Amino acid sequence: MDFVGSHILSIDQFERPDIDRIFAVAVLMEPFAQRKRVTKVLDGAILGNMFFEASTRTRISFGCAFNLLGGEVRETTGIENSALAKGESLYDTARVLSGYSDVIVMRHPEAGSVAEFASASRVPVLNGGDGANEHPTQALLDLYTIQKEMLAKQRQLDGLRIAMIGDLKYGRTVHSLVKLLCRYKNIHLHLIAPAALQMPEHLVEMARANGHTVHISEQLEGSIAHVDIAYSTRIQEERFGSRAEADLYRGKFRLNQSVYTQHCEPNTVIMHPLPRDSRAEANELDTDLNENPNLAIFRQADNGIVIRMALFALTLDVVDAIDDCSQAVGWYTGSRFQ
Amino acid sequence: MDFVGSHILSIDQFERPDIDRIFAVAVLMEPFAQRKRVTKVLDGAILGNMFFEASTRTRISFGCAFNLLGGEVRETTGIENSALAKGESLYDTARVLSGYSDVIVMRHPEAGSVAEFASASRVPVLNGGDGANEHPTQALLDLYTIQKEMLAKQRQLDGLRIAMIGDLKYGRTVHSLVKLLCRYKNIHLHLIAPAALQMPEHLVEMARANGHTVHISEQLEGSIAHVDIAYSTRIQEERFGSRAEADLYRGKFRLNQSVYTQHCEPNTVIMHPLPRDSRAEANELDTDLNENPNLAIFRQADNGIVIRMALFALTLDVVDAIDDCSQAVGWYTGSRFQ
Amino acid sequence: MDFVGSHILSIDQFERPDIDRIFAVAVLMEPFAQRKRVTKVLDGAILGNMFFEASTRTRISFGCAFNLLGGEVRETTGIENSALAKGESLYDTARVLSGYSDVIVMRHPEAGSVAEFASASRVPVLNGGDGANEHPTQALLDLYTIQKEMLAKQRQLDGLRIAMIGDLKYGRTVHSLVKLLCRYKNIHLHLIAPAALQMPEHLVEMARANGHTVHISEQLEGSIAHVDIAYSTRIQEERFGSRAEADLYRGKFRLNQSVYTQHCEPNTVIMHPLPRDSRAEANELDTDLNENPNLAIFRQADNGIVIRMALFALTLDVVDAIDDCSQAVGWYTGSRFQ
Repeated sequence: MDFVGSHILSIDQFERPDIDRIFAVAVLMEPFAQRKRVTKVLDGAILGNMFFEASTRTRISFGCAFNLLGGEVRETTGIENSALAKGESLYDTARVLSGYSDVIVMRHPEAGSVAEFASASRVPVLNGGDGANEHPTQALLDLYTIQKEMLAKQRQLDGLRIAMIGDLKYGRTVHSLVKLLCRYKNIHLHLIAPAALQMPEHLVEMARANGHTVHISEQLEGSIAHVDIAYSTRIQEERFGSRAEADLYRGKFRLNQSVYTQHCEPNTVIMHPLPRDSRAEANELDTDLNENPNLAIFRQADNGIVIRMALFALTLDVVDAIDDCSQAVGWYTGSRFQ
Repeated sequence: MDFVGSHILSIDQFERPDIDRIFAVAVLMEPFAQRKRVTKVLDGAILGNMFFEASTRTRISFGCAFNLLGGEVRETTGIENSALAKGESLYDTARVLSGYSDVIVMRHPEAGSVAEFASASRVPVLNGGDGANEHPTQALLDLYTIQKEMLAKQRQLDGLRIAMIGDLKYGRTVHSLVKLLCRYKNIHLHLIAPAALQMPEHLVEMARANGHTVHISEQLEGSIAHVDIAYSTRIQEERFGSRAEADLYRGKFRLNQSVYTQHCEPNTVIMHPLPRDSRAEANELDTDLNENPNLAIFRQADNGIVIRMALFALTLDVVDAIDDCSQAVGWYTGSRFQ
Repeated sequence: MDFVGSHILSIDQFERPDIDRIFAVAVLMEPFAQRKRVTKVLDGAILGNMFFEASTRTRISFGCAFNLLGGEVRETTGIENSALAKGESLYDTARVLSGYSDVIVMRHPEAGSVAEFASASRVPVLNGGDGANEHPTQALLDLYTIQKEMLAKQRQLDGLRIAMIGDLKYGRTVHSLVKLLCRYKNIHLHLIAPAALQMPEHLVEMARANGHTVHISEQLEGSIAHVDIAYSTRIQEERFGSRAEADLYRGKFRLNQSVYTQHCEPNTVIMHPLPRDSRAEANELDTDLNENPNLAIFRQADNGIVIRMALFALTLDVVDAIDDCSQAVGWYTGSRFQ
C-alpha cells in the first residue's frame, strides 16, 4: 500500500510487505525513542489527538510519539460536552477538526466510528481504537514485539510457536494478532481458554486455512510447554454464565514464576496487552514474574512508541528526512533504558 | 484601537478600521493555516488556554491557532476541582495564571467573568465566550466569512443582503453579527423566526438607526428569495411556551436542498455557527446540503483559525515578523484543502 | 546531594547546601520566567505531567516551567478511567509511563504513592503532591519567597521572625516550612492557631531542638507584632469538633488591612499557600489587602515557576547550557511584571 496521506483504520489494510515496511521504519525510530538522538522532522506539524473515549496510556503514547518527531499535540478526552453529544454528526466533526491539524488520531467507543470519521476528514486519520472493532496500533506493536524478541534469538516470525491464554472470545488484541499471523508461514497456535471463552471459530478456521497448526486446550499446564511466546490476557469473572462456572476455572489460567519454571521452556517470552490487573483476585500475570527477563510486557509498551512514530512518519511522508533533522540530546538520559 | 497588549473582550471594542485591520492580518495567516508555509514567530511563547466551561471545538481552534504561530499551549477544561470551585476569586485566579503565560484565552459560563478576570491579568486576555454575553471571535469569523464569500463574487460587505433564520431571540451569534453589520452601509436584513423567537427590538432599532433595511418574517419561503447569505441557527423546542406552539413551527425553518433550489438565488451562501444538530428532529440545516458548494459552514470553521491567529499576532505584536520566521513545510499536506 | 537523574520526593532529601543550590539556579531562571529572554535548552525533551488528582494551578505551573525551558508536555488529569482504576499497580504504571517521557511530575491522592511510583520509574520523578504527605515544590517556593523578600530588606533567612496562622495541625505547607527552617539558625516561630488546630508537638520539638524560639498563641493580635513574615492558612470549619467551638474562633484569625495597620510592623510580608478563599465566611486573608505592597501571595505563585524550572534543570543536568541556548524575546511582554 501507499502510506502517504492514507488513513490507518484496520490491520486488514496491510499485506506482509506493508508490515515489513512499518517495522523497518519502527527500527529507525528506536534511537529517537531511546533518546540517543532527537529529531525535529515534524517541527511545526500538529496532531489532533481526539480521544472521545478515555484512555490515558494510548493517548499519551500517541502524543509522545508525535512529540518525539518534533510535532505539537492538541487533544481532547471524553465525549461529554463535545459537539457529538449535542447531535453533531461524525461527518461534521471530521470536516471541522480536520481543518485544525495535519493528522488525527481518533478513539471512539463505537465500532466503525473512526472509519466514518475518516471518510470526511481532510487529513490522515489513525484509528486509536473504535470499541470492539479495531485497535490496529496495538496489534502492530504486539507483532513487532514478537518479531523483535524472536530476532534476539536468531529466529523469524515464520515458524513461530505461540500460546494465547485467557479470554480469547472477547479479547480484541488476540483476534487481531491471529489475523496478522495469517500473513506468515507455519505458525503453531496454542489457544488456551475456558470452553465458553475460546477463540471464535472463524478465526480458528482462518488460521488453519493459512496452513497454521491450531491446538485448543482448557489447560495451561502442558499447553505452554513448547512455545516461544506466552501471550496472556485477562479473564473477567462476569464473562462466565454463573459463579459456579467461574469457580471452576479460578486461577487455572494465572501464570506465575512457579508455573513458568515448571512448565515452560527456559526462554519463553511472556506478553500481555496491558494494563495488567495486579489485584489478588485477578486471573492473569503474577507480579512475581517482574524480575523474569523474559517478561516482555514493558518492552511491548515501549514498542508502542516506535510503531506509532513509524505510522506518523509514513503517512506524513517524512521517513527520509528524519536523520537530516536530527541532533544530539542535550540533557540527562542516563537511567532511561537499562 | 491599539491592539498591542490589549484584551479582546467584546466586539464593541472594534470600529470599522479595527475590523479591517484584523481581517487584513487574517488574510496573511491563510498560507500558514493552509500549510503552504510554517511560521515560528511565537517560538517559545505560551498560551494559557483556560476553558472553565467545556468547548472542544473552540478550545482546540484557539490552541491550534497558537501552535500554527509556533507557540506552546497549556490548558485546562472545566471548572470542577479548580481553585474557583474552592472559593477563589477571579481576581486571584487572574493574578496567578497571568504569571504563567504570555497570553490567555478564557471561557467561563458567567457573563462578565472574562472582563473581570482580564482586569486583574498581567497579560492580554482573549474572550473565548462568557455565557450569554459575548463570543467575539465567533462574531469576527462570521463576518470574515461573509466578506470572503462576497469578495469571491466581486462584492463588498456594504450592500449585503442577509437572512438570519431560526432562534434570533437567544442566539448570541446573530446578535453579535447584527451589531458588527452596523459598522457597514446599506445592509438588507431579513429576520426570519417564530414570533416568540424574533430578534430583540433594540437590535432591530440599532440596525434601522444605522440606515439598514430590516424585513421581519415568520416564513422561510419568500424571505430567502433575494439574499446573498442565509445564516441559519438552531431552534430548540424548549424555547417555545408549549408543545402546541412548537408543533406550529415544526420544520418550517429547516433549510434543505429542495427548499434551497426552489426558493433561493443560485449562489446564495449558507452559514451556521455550528455545531449543527444532524438528528432527524433537529430544526436546522439538512445534511442533503453537504454537496452544495455554497454551504460555507466548514469554511466558517476554517476561518476561525485565521481570525484567532490574527488576534494573537496583533495583541502580541508579531505581525511584521511572521514572514521572516517562516519556512517551507516538510510533510505531506496533499489532501488538506481540496 | 547529586541532583542529576534524582527523584525529588521529599524536602527531607535536602541539606542546606542543596537548598542553596536550588535557589541559586532559581535566580538564574528569573529572566526566562519574566520573559526578558527565551531559552530552548530542553528543546525536544518531554515532560509527563501525570496528575492523578486534579490541581489546575500546580499542573499548569509545572507544565509552563517545562515549556519555559523549551520542552514539550504531555499530561493527564484525574484518576477516573486510568489504568490505575482497573487494578494496575503503581509499579506497572511507572514502568510504562517512564518509557514515554524524559521526566515525570506526579500528583496522586495517596501518601507514599509517588515514592512507590518513582522506585519503578526509569526517568526522574518530581513529587507534585501525594495526599497528606509531601508537596516539596510548594515548600521550596515558600522558603524561596521568604528568602527573596528578606534579601530585599538586606536580611537573611538566619534570624527570621515568622508567624504561622490558622490551621497548623492539618496544613501540609506549614509543616514542611517548619522542617525546612530547621536547616537555618535562630528562627523565631510564632504559631497562632485555635488550641485544637495547633502545630503537631513533634514539629515544635524539632524546631526547639534546632535552637529556634517557638511562641504558641491562640490570639492573632499581639502575636504578629514583631515578625518579618505573617504566613496565613485556611481554617476549615469542619475541622472543629462542634459548631460551638467553630463559633468561638470565628474571624479571630482573619487578617485584613485594619488588623495589619494596627498590629504589624510596617513592612511585614504577608504570605499564603493559595488558593485563598475570598468568600465572606472564609477565615483567612481579606481582599482589602490586595493593594498592600507587602502582600506577597502572587509573588509566591510566580516563584513557583522558577523553583520548578530549577528542579527540572538540575535533575536533567542542563543548568550550564541554559544561557547558550537562549535568545531574545520577539513578542509583546510589556505588561507582564509591573
